[in-house]
Amino acid sequence: MTREELFENIMRKRSFLCVGLDTDVNKIPEFLFDREGDLDPIFEFNKSIIDATAEYCVAYKPNLAFYESLGLQGWDVLERTIDYIREKYPDQFLIADAKRGDIGNTSAMYARTFFGALDFDSVTVAPYMGEDSVSPFLTYENKWVTLLALTSNKGAFDFQFTEDKETGDRLFEKVLKTSLKWGNEDNMMYVVGATKAEMLADIRKIIPNHFLLVPGIGAQGGSLADVVKHGMNKQCGLLVNSSRAILYASSGEDYAQAAAAEAKKVQQQMSEFLKSLD
Amino acid sequence: MTREELFENIMRKRSFLCVGLDTDVNKIPEFLFDREGDLDPIFEFNKSIIDATAEYCVAYKPNLAFYESLGLQGWDVLERTIDYIREKYPDQFLIADAKRGDIGNTSAMYARTFFGALDFDSVTVAPYMGEDSVSPFLTYENKWVTLLALTSNKGAFDFQFTEDKETGDRLFEKVLKTSLKWGNEDNMMYVVGATKAEMLADIRKIIPNHFLLVPGIGAQGGSLADVVKHGMNKQCGLLVNSSRAILYASSGEDYAQAAAAEAKKVQQQMSEFLKSLD
Repeated sequence: MTREELFENIMRKRSFLCVGLDTDVNKIPEFLFDREGDLDPIFEFNKSIIDATAEYCVAYKPNLAFYESLGLQGWDVLERTIDYIREKYPDQFLIADAKRGDIGNTSAMYARTFFGALDFDSVTVAPYMGEDSVSPFLTYENKWVTLLALTSNKGAFDFQFTEDKETGDRLFEKVLKTSLKWGNEDNMMYVVGATKAEMLADIRKIIPNHFLLVPGIGAQGGSLADVVKHGMNKQCGLLVNSSRAILYASSGEDYAQAAAAEAKKVQQQMSEFLKSLD
Repeated sequence: MTREELFENIMRKRSFLCVGLDTDVNKIPEFLFDREGDLDPIFEFNKSIIDATAEYCVAYKPNLAFYESLGLQGWDVLERTIDYIREKYPDQFLIADAKRGDIGNTSAMYARTFFGALDFDSVTVAPYMGEDSVSPFLTYENKWVTLLALTSNKGAFDFQFTEDKETGDRLFEKVLKTSLKWGNEDNMMYVVGATKAEMLADIRKIIPNHFLLVPGIGAQGGSLADVVKHGMNKQCGLLVNSSRAILYASSGEDYAQAAAAEAKKVQQQMSEFLKSLD
């Protein structure tokens, strides 16, 4: 998907919500396991969540850990989930939250997995190993790298704020500046946690036009208004992720309706914020 | 596996070789695909390589990228390869070269995959997201984190040598020092590329006793003698990886014998170096 298409989808749907499909076998409603027939509870859960939320979001982001933990069955569910979205909701931007990154020839192999075999639009990549760990993902047309810059977890403070003796830049700023030489605003976006929304102003000075993928709204405690205030640009430039708050809005038979209601609530807030771009 | 067991295996087998099972479907001998019956060429290749090299090495390290790129089939081959080693060669140390790392609850999910479902001894983990991305892997008894410190690729120079304004430490040194608070020499080892062997002396000042996993011998150009000179400690403290030089030593019907010969050659060099520890 191109940047223009993504922006068009955002304005048409009045939403920049990304739904994180972190489907945890221990958290999905129990009754899904008790039904007759050979229905696959995890895939059925994903399908219902997708059908319930697709009109309120522009992107889905399965976190690979949740699927890998189920072995062969999990990989199969992931493939079918992606195929299901691609067929039924072709306007969704699909992010593999995989946080990969390896030496060049190995990253090329990961790129083939996520962009060839699985047809994702983007993969999250960790920057520690530098350019050749990232650039193989940038050789696919209309595919994206979503590079970790400033993450939403507590451990972000261990290394990401290290100040460079030479330039004074903090490590996440160095990652932003250095990676500008590898890709551009049409094939790179960055993970910036909502829990550090006040940093978004600094980040926007370095990358005014790039899209940011913002986790940490909801369960992790960040505020949507703060993210918009400091992070929104003329082409929105934001994909805000919510996972647990939507997926596990209810553990009863009404889980899909509850997920829809939660997604709609966020979408309506986003719709207000998008008025400034009309 | 405990550190003592690993050291015992090294001294008994006179080897600290780790064979990287980076099985590339485009590089394994073509005749494996032409045989009759439903033999699985990738699994057959792995089995032959393992049988040919097991007496010369103490560890195997499948890189997950190569298996994931084959989707369901690849995941299945990975599972069967691990099971095969566990049954036939229980003294091998098994490293999942996965370079994972995510927020706490997600890293816990990855740990469950590699230590629960798959019974690896260790997983390679990227440090960028800090403590809570690493510590869930440290909660399993006799299991290890192999943390990226100084990698063997060109991109290592992009961020890993960033000097901390406050302490003067380079980022890889900060990773070593900081992570000493998370684990110890019985559950953490570090990736240090052989292409930067001269750095090993500096690294040994910070972590004199830890094991190091050293890639970059052979195809990537590092020298075993340099690694030993600067990196070996009283309990060896080294696992030196070789992948392509062993796996693809021959593309003919003699590929397994050629792999054995290559592994034996490295083991014999290692045997000489280990004499200093007798």
